[in-house]
Amino acid sequence: MRRALDDAGLDLLFRAARTQNGWLDTPVTDEQLRQIYALMRMGPTSANCCPARLVFVRTPEAKARLLPALSPGNVDKTRAAPVTAIIGYDTRFHELLPKLFPHRPEMADNFAKNAALAETTAFRNGTLQGAYFMIAVRALGLDCGGMSGFDNAKVDAEFFPDGRVKSNFLCNVGHGDPAKVMARLPRLPFEEACTLL
Amino acid sequence: MRRALDDAGLDLLFRAARTQNGWLDTPVTDEQLRQIYALMRMGPTSANCCPARLVFVRTPEAKARLLPALSPGNVDKTRAAPVTAIIGYDTRFHELLPKLFPHRPEMADNFAKNAALAETTAFRNGTLQGAYFMIAVRALGLDCGGMSGFDNAKVDAEFFPDGRVKSNFLCNVGHGDPAKVMARLPRLPFEEACTLL
Repeated sequence: MRRALDDAGLDLLFRAARTQNGWLDTPVTDEQLRQIYALMRMGPTSANCCPARLVFVRTPEAKARLLPALSPGNVDKTRAAPVTAIIGYDTRFHELLPKLFPHRPEMADNFAKNAALAETTAFRNGTLQGAYFMIAVRALGLDCGGMSGFDNAKVDAEFFPDGRVKSNFLCNVGHGDPAKVMARLPRLPFEEACTLL
Repeated sequence: MRRALDDAGLDLLFRAARTQNGWLDTPVTDEQLRQIYALMRMGPTSANCCPARLVFVRTPEAKARLLPALSPGNVDKTRAAPVTAIIGYDTRFHELLPKLFPHRPEMADNFAKNAALAETTAFRNGTLQGAYFMIAVRALGLDCGGMSGFDNAKVDAEFFPDGRVKSNFLCNVGHGDPAKVMARLPRLPFEEACTLL
């Protein structure tokens, strides 16, 4: 029988893990951010295209550039978080395919010629990598809190002014304050979300 | 110190896990598919919108409906896989928000009034859930192999004829044949994908 995660591991990643809305003062080190990336980058992407690009906003100066783009409900928790990751995707990811997919470098042409395919591929695979990021954070014993409530265009203008990278979502990282976790919301039962054929 | 996954757990999910291109005869039970879904559904989505919808293609008859939509390189491995999941997203996910986000049911109106926001939200969060699916498969000791190489319109016409659900990507599930795993492709170093601010 193949090894699987034990109950404590499944709890850590999925069953007991919760989106965090408040943060303790415990810092997150740059070494921890490197460990998170070292894990998340191993997750699968189509043709190994790896389009995700991350900006780790750590300092008060960098936070001050980010906060004006946030929905009001996301400001305080983002200010309090040790790190806020801007998870973006490289719209010109295909220029790196000769390095990332070296046995078929001509794959790059498919994307260079088809802007809609490139956009969909970058968004889909950059988002998969964003999920790997959140799972990696939890796997390493940290907490996360993803956020879509912000003005993508403002973030892009401030952090990606040359237009190559587009913001996807934000994710606070740190040690969550258990007192600020909200009640668990319901999930869809198997029969409502899944079909067996 | 908070619990984290041990090295064996990190290997299982990320470091030693590999996309599979061939499959052993070992079956995948419906109970295992329910266990996968029970884990993946706990992963975070924006406003708990949970837009992913899964079709588990298990029987030869159902496989025969799927295979004509695949790129040639994906046919044999999909035929051999015990299960192929069609990971789709519900374009009208917001109709379920009064149940999934009951403290602010008016959130549904934001999406009903803005088709572009609804599409982006469904695709982003359905893709996050697709990544949770692949991690859950691995966490339970099974293997997966995601695929984007197929004709989405053909899959949609065959499996989602009323147009409400759109296919996102496919994922074979089972026990992989180690002899058919490809060489590990390179990943981007931290400095190329990440910025510390």
